[in-house]
Amino acid sequence: MSTMLDLGRAVLAQQPFSALMGAELVAYEANRAILELPLRPELLQQNGFAHGGVLCYLADNALTFAGGSALGSAVVTSEFKINYLRPALGERLCAEASVVHAGRSQAVVRCEIFAAQGAQRKVCAAAQGTITHLAAPRKQG
Amino acid sequence: MSTMLDLGRAVLAQQPFSALMGAELVAYEANRAILELPLRPELLQQNGFAHGGVLCYLADNALTFAGGSALGSAVVTSEFKINYLRPALGERLCAEASVVHAGRSQAVVRCEIFAAQGAQRKVCAAAQGTITHLAAPRKQG
Amino acid sequence: MSTMLDLGRAVLAQQPFSALMGAELVAYEANRAILELPLRPELLQQNGFAHGGVLCYLADNALTFAGGSALGSAVVTSEFKINYLRPALGERLCAEASVVHAGRSQAVVRCEIFAAQGAQRKVCAAAQGTITHLAAPRKQG
Amino acid sequence: MSTMLDLGRAVLAQQPFSALMGAELVAYEANRAILELPLRPELLQQNGFAHGGVLCYLADNALTFAGGSALGSAVVTSEFKINYLRPALGERLCAEASVVHAGRSQAVVRCEIFAAQGAQRKVCAAAQGTITHLAAPRKQG
Repeated sequence: MSTMLDLGRAVLAQQPFSALMGAELVAYEANRAILELPLRPELLQQNGFAHGGVLCYLADNALTFAGGSALGSAVVTSEFKINYLRPALGERLCAEASVVHAGRSQAVVRCEIFAAQGAQRKVCAAAQGTITHLAAPRKQG
Repeated sequence: MSTMLDLGRAVLAQQPFSALMGAELVAYEANRAILELPLRPELLQQNGFAHGGVLCYLADNALTFAGGSALGSAVVTSEFKINYLRPALGERLCAEASVVHAGRSQAVVRCEIFAAQGAQRKVCAAAQGTITHLAAPRKQG
Repeated sequence: MSTMLDLGRAVLAQQPFSALMGAELVAYEANRAILELPLRPELLQQNGFAHGGVLCYLADNALTFAGGSALGSAVVTSEFKINYLRPALGERLCAEASVVHAGRSQAVVRCEIFAAQGAQRKVCAAAQGTITHLAAPRKQG
Repeated sequence: MSTMLDLGRAVLAQQPFSALMGAELVAYEANRAILELPLRPELLQQNGFAHGGVLCYLADNALTFAGGSALGSAVVTSEFKINYLRPALGERLCAEASVVHAGRSQAVVRCEIFAAQGAQRKVCAAAQGTITHLAAPRKQG
């Protein structure tokens, strides 16, 4: 039997950019999604931290999945904002997104990104955005 | 003689993630930066458009460069927001950032991202964010 | 003959909060709106500057009018962000909004707010947001 | 003995615009602030809902107070974004802000605004922004 998490992973696997990044969907349920990304040297910037673009990729995608869990699969991220809280340093990043409010056509979703090293986690970014339902599929991510 | 553009390109070359993405700095002057990114299959999402994470990487980095041109090189992007305007389809993306206002320690910067195919360009995202000067270098990007 | 500006002023006059604030629509045309607000003591905060809430009222409303000029009158501001650039000091504020991109159902709009004293103007805030068309009228502002 | 809530109320009382609006600080403690605002006809827009400018005033001010509780009193709201979730209808609004992360000089804060009628409350907006510590007092609000 195919679970919601299986379905979400199938969508993620269809995103070539997510494959390039190496993101994994570790939780996917109603109003909530968690994406993880192992950090490797080519995801960093010049000072050894995860590049801001890596963090905003994770935010964008985690927001979209969480919003999609509320609205259905044909969704698009219309907009979001991200605040970087501290340098992202560790062996992996974890983006946890949850829906604040979902109407018929739009969901507003928040996300926090944690940098993890072993059992230790530190929040390093916070995001908030709008996911919009499409009549016809156009873009997820 | 080393130009400002040369210096900016040297910073970009030190970002492993920008090398992975394939971004090029095509203009860099006071209060302004332009980044280009040739689109290739692994930068797309499941419907054939550039992934939102690719667009927000470009916005993040173009904002940082433009802000850095006003504040000095030791800068960090504190936050930004992005609105996706239309699916990003074409042979390359071009992110043009310019400073709205720069104070001593912060600059507020805007950016538009265009998808280009041959001579045709269409705006596909708009961003606005804050670049902060650091006493000691920490992160650019 | 009723002009577009007359129609916009009639909408503004129907907003009790805009009457309380004292805002005036000074320009209203396709993809563009300008709101002015004379500053008086009760619009200030404790240090003598215009309160941030006054600036974001102006941004919200100018964005809505500009978006409404592109989409039609039954519109709602879905979201926006504002960056405060410098303390707002002067005899009046002027919010100038223009559409970045308008689709069928949404417009993305930007706005700058200037503080003016006599002939001198200084930019004191920059905003960007989404205006959404409604099938049935719900909210403008 | 003067409590933290008393001190916060004294700051709010020094803001002429907050007096015009009629806002009350009902909770103020480390990393958290709650502002309430009784709705009256002059705070509405043309369809009978609270004007968006009223909601963003509340968000701006609640974010500033919560950030100020973490950073000290000389703070300024640098930027924020707000998503409107549903029309704000009721006898009062309640803005609840809490700090996501505070460093030495900046705090990132989130806020939800609820519209209340009797014992019933509905979330009608969500905001996220940056509060910055100032060496010398400049603006709160």
